[in-house]
Amino acid sequence: MAAPIDFYFDFSSPYGYLAAQKIDALAAKHGRTVDWHPILLGVVFKQTGMAPLTGIPLKGEYSKRDFARSARFHGIAGFRVPTKFPIASQAPSRIVLWQKARDAALAVRVAKALFRAYFVDDVDISNPDAASAVAAKEGIDAAAARAAVDDPSVKDALKREVDAAVGRGVFGSPFIIVDGEPFWGLDRFDQIERWLATGGF
Amino acid sequence: MAAPIDFYFDFSSPYGYLAAQKIDALAAKHGRTVDWHPILLGVVFKQTGMAPLTGIPLKGEYSKRDFARSARFHGIAGFRVPTKFPIASQAPSRIVLWQKARDAALAVRVAKALFRAYFVDDVDISNPDAASAVAAKEGIDAAAARAAVDDPSVKDALKREVDAAVGRGVFGSPFIIVDGEPFWGLDRFDQIERWLATGGF
Repeated sequence: MAAPIDFYFDFSSPYGYLAAQKIDALAAKHGRTVDWHPILLGVVFKQTGMAPLTGIPLKGEYSKRDFARSARFHGIAGFRVPTKFPIASQAPSRIVLWQKARDAALAVRVAKALFRAYFVDDVDISNPDAASAVAAKEGIDAAAARAAVDDPSVKDALKREVDAAVGRGVFGSPFIIVDGEPFWGLDRFDQIERWLATGGF
Repeated sequence: MAAPIDFYFDFSSPYGYLAAQKIDALAAKHGRTVDWHPILLGVVFKQTGMAPLTGIPLKGEYSKRDFARSARFHGIAGFRVPTKFPIASQAPSRIVLWQKARDAALAVRVAKALFRAYFVDDVDISNPDAASAVAAKEGIDAAAARAAVDDPSVKDALKREVDAAVGRGVFGSPFIIVDGEPFWGLDRFDQIERWLATGGF
């Protein structure tokens, strides 16, 4: 069986959110599964000297317009730029990574719920209590999820994940690696689709 | 008749080159024409604090791979990252802008020839003599084209074009404005297509 597609995302990334709505179906269409990797773009940006999109003159204003237009273009209803944006994404990332080691399928459902809470329901998921409450609605023990956010071993595991991502060349969100081939951005899904269909071009 | 689509590009931009191969056909399919605007990303980047793509750690390496892959994906043969890359694009931009005031259709042919010389034939079009020689092959007087590069009135006209572009929110290449709606990147051509077909979404 073919290896999973690696899907890297930051919970504060609008294009990451939009990609998260589509990646599983795209993979399944080609008989593939997806390995979901939460990362911290803030840490990645320190290593590359990049800045958050919305703080850049001209590009920032354009981006906010493009987030919403891209959501409409891809038929993803309910998207809005959250009141608090961008956010630090340690809390949701640690909860998902902690859960992934216990039940990877449930971790993906939790990741999707966290994304939706932030980008549709305007919940500030950078708050550990708020993030744990979202996870609890998916059937996870809220106190255990909340404890994971402050667990040194989970913190270390996330640091290692981010370092490993940077080691593979990941510099943005969403970032997808298919059989060693890197693709950055929701707007490469057309190329990913052809890559999966043809084995490369 | 509907207004032309505004197409902003830098002669040093690989995605600008790829977009230049497709923009006229896309517009014509929807009964529209294209107004070609050479700009100087170096000047724009000073105003936005952005950096050339290929100088950014990780993103730079990825970009070179993506340039070539995107060319293959879009069926554009012959693309290569030029030996000298990126380049300052004053010389080709001034020749095209100067020619545009005399014969806009010919200026577009010259722009396409300059892009092809740089990205297919590896000609250093930042050199005024080399750029003039490319223009001459399209039927323009080489000495007149060469003189335009150093003409203060042409220099001023290009500065005004770049300022006007920034004033409209242009921050990258290619950048397309359709009836006031801004689109950045070759990878927004799918959205541009739907926008042209539907009048907005």
